Amino acid sequence: MRYCLECGHEAEYKIPEMDNMPRLVCPNCGYIHYENPKIICGTLVVHEDKILLCRRAIEPRYGYWTIPAGFMENGETIAEGAARESFEEADATAINPQLYCIYDIPDIGQIYIIYLTDLKDGAYGAGVESLECALFDEVDIPWDDVAFEAVKRTLKRYFNDRVTHDSRASYPVHQDRISKDKSIKRY
Amino acid sequence: MRYCLECGHEAEYKIPEMDNMPRLVCPNCGYIHYENPKIICGTLVVHEDKILLCRRAIEPRYGYWTIPAGFMENGETIAEGAARESFEEADATAINPQLYCIYDIPDIGQIYIIYLTDLKDGAYGAGVESLECALFDEVDIPWDDVAFEAVKRTLKRYFNDRVTHDSRASYPVHQDRISKDKSIKRY
Repeated sequence: MRYCLECGHEAEYKIPEMDNMPRLVCPNCGYIHYENPKIICGTLVVHEDKILLCRRAIEPRYGYWTIPAGFMENGETIAEGAARESFEEADATAINPQLYCIYDIPDIGQIYIIYLTDLKDGAYGAGVESLECALFDEVDIPWDDVAFEAVKRTLKRYFNDRVTHDSRASYPVHQDRISKDKSIKRY
Repeated sequence: MRYCLECGHEAEYKIPEMDNMPRLVCPNCGYIHYENPKIICGTLVVHEDKILLCRRAIEPRYGYWTIPAGFMENGETIAEGAARESFEEADATAINPQLYCIYDIPDIGQIYIIYLTDLKDGAYGAGVESLECALFDEVDIPWDDVAFEAVKRTLKRYFNDRVTHDSRASYPVHQDRISKDKSIKRY
């Protein structure tokens, strides 16, 4: 059973008038609760050809390596959200954002939007959601311990683009659909 | 007053532990209700150099012209959602999607993601949310009656790109921040 956000009455799933999908509707006050995909904004932070990765201190994927990324918040742009995540997870100031990868993960209602950025002054630490953060050369990327498919693909795209393009400005925007990873327990 | 989706108890806005922003939190069951930006997916549908526009049969901007666009749903990719909107609003099958424009509208917690597409068989009608639909040459675009700033910018970008680029495949992905239009009454 779920309840109405606006009046607390028991709500029910039904297809509202002029709609074609079931929604949580309140029979008391008529409020319709829409649930839509969420945006995960993230940054591939590069410094002197090295990539900034964070080892997760939270589930899912505790102990695995990822790039700074998290749920976009109301009131910010995607790039601002991506920079905020870099700051929160790695004490890093991500600058010169360039739109880089967009991943659809329809099975879990998520869109990843990743910016390629530089790291201001090469400075970073580790936020409360990270066990540690570090800059990795390509040969040192811990591929078997990368947390998410979206992160793996972004890293691979980047290492490929930087040998096939003369300048970062000419890198394409990559777009992909990713299937749900059933090995990840989500909450 | 707002209520808990999970148990119906009165909920309160507070900053949860390990967080830094106020959320709607239930003091009874601990459920945290997150509100995040929503994606508007849309299509700039082109047929023989003409653009498909729809005259809105719903608020906001009843009677104004727009491109097919609407809230992205769970379970679909952005491109699938954009194609769905074309079908719902204009009885049009949008094919060959190419990522084209991304607009941040942080003041209202929306992200527009627009695909450039072709119109299958040149066929269209008008869905229930449209008073009428029509294909417009550039000179005939009803600029003063275009519903939203994001639509205006997309049209302008397109008319510019098609004179400055040899092929559609080379059009860049445009990205902009748009301010809230205070003249639009939102519900």
